[in-house]
Amino acid sequence: MEQTATAAAPVTFETNPAQYRHWKLSFDGPVATLSMDVREDAGLRSDYKLKLNSYDLGVDIELADAIQRIRFEHPDVKAVIVNSLKERIFCAGANIFMLGGSSHGFKVNFCKFTNETRLAMEDASAHSGIKFLAALNGICAGGGYELALACDEIVLVDDGNSAVSLPETPLLGVLPGTGGLTRVVDKRKVRRDLADFFSTVAEGVKGKRAVEWRFVDAVYPTSRFKDEVARRAKELAAQSDRPGTGPGIILNPLNPKVTDEQLAYRFVTLTIDRGKRLAEITVKAPDAPQPDTADAIVAVGDAFWALRAFREFDDALLRLRLNEPEIGTVTIKATGNPEAVLAVDKTLDANRDHWAVREIIHFIKRTLKRMDLTSRSFFALIEPGNAFAGTLFELVLASDRAYMLDDPDKPNSIALSAMNGGSYPMSNGLTRLQTRFLGEPDKVDELLAAEEPFEPQDALDAGLVFSAPDDLDWDDEVRLAIEERAALSPDALTGMEANLRFAGPETLETKIFGRLTAWQNWIFQRPNAVGERGALKVYGREGRPEFDWRRC
Amino acid sequence: MEQTATAAAPVTFETNPAQYRHWKLSFDGPVATLSMDVREDAGLRSDYKLKLNSYDLGVDIELADAIQRIRFEHPDVKAVIVNSLKERIFCAGANIFMLGGSSHGFKVNFCKFTNETRLAMEDASAHSGIKFLAALNGICAGGGYELALACDEIVLVDDGNSAVSLPETPLLGVLPGTGGLTRVVDKRKVRRDLADFFSTVAEGVKGKRAVEWRFVDAVYPTSRFKDEVARRAKELAAQSDRPGTGPGIILNPLNPKVTDEQLAYRFVTLTIDRGKRLAEITVKAPDAPQPDTADAIVAVGDAFWALRAFREFDDALLRLRLNEPEIGTVTIKATGNPEAVLAVDKTLDANRDHWAVREIIHFIKRTLKRMDLTSRSFFALIEPGNAFAGTLFELVLASDRAYMLDDPDKPNSIALSAMNGGSYPMSNGLTRLQTRFLGEPDKVDELLAAEEPFEPQDALDAGLVFSAPDDLDWDDEVRLAIEERAALSPDALTGMEANLRFAGPETLETKIFGRLTAWQNWIFQRPNAVGERGALKVYGREGRPEFDWRRC
Repeated sequence: MEQTATAAAPVTFETNPAQYRHWKLSFDGPVATLSMDVREDAGLRSDYKLKLNSYDLGVDIELADAIQRIRFEHPDVKAVIVNSLKERIFCAGANIFMLGGSSHGFKVNFCKFTNETRLAMEDASAHSGIKFLAALNGICAGGGYELALACDEIVLVDDGNSAVSLPETPLLGVLPGTGGLTRVVDKRKVRRDLADFFSTVAEGVKGKRAVEWRFVDAVYPTSRFKDEVARRAKELAAQSDRPGTGPGIILNPLNPKVTDEQLAYRFVTLTIDRGKRLAEITVKAPDAPQPDTADAIVAVGDAFWALRAFREFDDALLRLRLNEPEIGTVTIKATGNPEAVLAVDKTLDANRDHWAVREIIHFIKRTLKRMDLTSRSFFALIEPGNAFAGTLFELVLASDRAYMLDDPDKPNSIALSAMNGGSYPMSNGLTRLQTRFLGEPDKVDELLAAEEPFEPQDALDAGLVFSAPDDLDWDDEVRLAIEERAALSPDALTGMEANLRFAGPETLETKIFGRLTAWQNWIFQRPNAVGERGALKVYGREGRPEFDWRRC
Repeated sequence: MEQTATAAAPVTFETNPAQYRHWKLSFDGPVATLSMDVREDAGLRSDYKLKLNSYDLGVDIELADAIQRIRFEHPDVKAVIVNSLKERIFCAGANIFMLGGSSHGFKVNFCKFTNETRLAMEDASAHSGIKFLAALNGICAGGGYELALACDEIVLVDDGNSAVSLPETPLLGVLPGTGGLTRVVDKRKVRRDLADFFSTVAEGVKGKRAVEWRFVDAVYPTSRFKDEVARRAKELAAQSDRPGTGPGIILNPLNPKVTDEQLAYRFVTLTIDRGKRLAEITVKAPDAPQPDTADAIVAVGDAFWALRAFREFDDALLRLRLNEPEIGTVTIKATGNPEAVLAVDKTLDANRDHWAVREIIHFIKRTLKRMDLTSRSFFALIEPGNAFAGTLFELVLASDRAYMLDDPDKPNSIALSAMNGGSYPMSNGLTRLQTRFLGEPDKVDELLAAEEPFEPQDALDAGLVFSAPDDLDWDDEVRLAIEERAALSPDALTGMEANLRFAGPETLETKIFGRLTAWQNWIFQRPNAVGERGALKVYGREGRPEFDWRRC
């Protein structure tokens, strides 16, 4: 199964509403409507048709883009109706033939991205005052229901036929892996026996029972459905704390220079060394004056360094994940003037209540989470001339290890800022500093109170870096660390990093990525799913799947 | 790899110190010493030698037995030294050739059992006042260090050579899956970069660095090692709240009648229908007067129904897991007089501070957790004459679904007791009632306050059962539910149940079974570990492993 197709060409993640093939985005005052209308013949690969509003990665890339643009470009939007333009069909879920024909790695990364997109909706609700209403006008199955689960409210048409369902286990022998099982019992708090029944019947539940069992918030007859959806959307909008006025920030194309070995953006460069299975990401500090008020930030828009640099970093991570599976280790560098980063941090911190600054901070947070969840080894290399300060120091904290050159002839330092103190929580709910110092919790405030940058020995003593070799040892130590990493089993590293990176509390989010995803990945390897007669392979073909009945 | 050996004969789990092949258990006042001295040629299978104190399931069965007996038979023991009788070797971890030659299902169940045993040590520390000191006299690698991590304190000899290590990732391409990664960052709160380094170097860390990095609590030179271990063990014993006097409760053999289709114990019967891939477990209520004071309980010892019935249930679950992998669904019944169960519950509740009653309650708790973690579907069948009351009702709450016959001609009821209120927390830290009613938390106290048993319709309305068919529907509904379950992918069910059963908070324990185990099971399927040139297969043979470098 490892030989099956992945997306034909390298996947790109940038799009915009004018280019959408599968979604329509419309606006009516504070209520936006995001309508799914998947084009059957516009999948990322040609070996499947996206029937019945089923989706592939391309559909989800547009969804992610739409949510992002609502946050930045439409500060007046307070509620989003998520519906379908197809008759009596909301969404049939992830396309099964796409899954059946995808490599293991592609399935894993596809699910990771869709999970991140669903969580971005919940993040928009929790932190941007954008409330989501899933308006289910018909069949809502599998990933379709998982999309609904990511909304604040779910309403279903009561037409005697339309139902919500998670048919993955009974039909496909896999899990609803885009957060479905977790959200059913943890977010909607459905009783486990009802969830168990629901997750094993292909037809799902409908009508009053769907409400009584907590799977949806309300059902309405077809005649009242549209009006009730509109009414509830207005009510949701009324709960919002968004400012409601002002121009948005347009997210313009990033236009990186793309060569076979490099993605070069304005502030971020990703360089690939396929021979060594190594990549290097360099982030540049601001190299020109940056706006220092909220209004000035809105005025410069997406040219503002903090937004631009992290949009580029996010795009680079996504391309790396999907298009360069053999690159196992990524070195992270930051160059330029750390004072310029700290100045931006001061502006972000002072204006964090402004809607646009709030969006930028939460976007940086999500990008850093994307890094935490990227199954590659990250080594930060801190050399003289580095710009690892404040927000950029989070890249060091998100790395598996950090090496800092200690050469008395070449001053080298790192710095923290107020932004390391709580602006960028990880998916476990703690900051990276708190997670790092779980065993010495008092140390976090102590370090944040430091008024001077940390020289290499101080950084080492403070526990902020892993190693601080001198100039004689630096080259060998870094080279050896990278070479040794590259020799280890990529699977063991993925599992190891997934366990070591998230110490401390668990949340719905970490449960999805830790527990649900890990089990799904296991199932995605099993012959009962992906073998020649596995359920995922046999679906839609003649005959029934054949199972090895041994329980593990 | 699915065709490789499992344990040759059916595995049994009962043993006692006189039969131990691999451990010596000795006593010196309040300090017990549990010494590992693995017999190379006494493995469960003949295709590997247990060199260097490496272990297989048989070694761990003895360890589990020893811990259990210390709790019940030796109420005077307050601290346990875990050491080794081999020179300069503490333990080399799980035997790699055993793992390499085991089927996937056996590996999964082996790891589950070893994890439960480690957690039983932590449970004894937290709830029985038995503190564990790992005294590492030499090499302590992989599962050996995971055993040490389960202890309250770890001391290591400082001889320039002895180290602690988790070499699974660098040497074998798998994870330290017996809680190792989780305990390193969550229990011992080792910094993630130090944990990352440690988990990727086969040689581990030793001496002062091991202390500074929090991997061990102290190192001592060989000359002082024995004295310091004795001193620390006494200090640990001084922290204990155990009573320190009185006779223990001897755990006698269970002696079930074993036939090809049945395990028949005194109170528990497990019946297998291999054709339907179905088992039935029936638990009988007490059928004779039971002791109603703590002293009387100690006097009747292991004949006390609450202890005996759950020892039998535990043994049946373990045999089912290891010896009957194709049995996918288990129906659970309880027969006899529910009043007799409620009377025992009253005794347990009234005497919960007595050491023996405390042990019995925590043992029942652990057995119920074992059921939660058993990857089979459990359906409770509640019929007239049932004894699902109080403690036995936990079996219903631990089931994936419960069906209750509603026939007006045949009275049928269930009942709660104070014991459902907090005595048997799940591994998520909540009771089964709390987990069940996560969406209606007030309901828990309301139900616990009910003074009358619940008739079928009341039980259904209260949300205590999944369905209450009448006598016309009962047979068909139950039969269909069982048949439909038996048709589903066993892997998807395992993953689904692992996600639906543990709503609510996560703990170190759920992290181990959810996140760490799920990732390990994934890796245990991957060609990079178990393929012909996978790391686990190649270990100890000529040549190096070959990896598919794609990261997922």
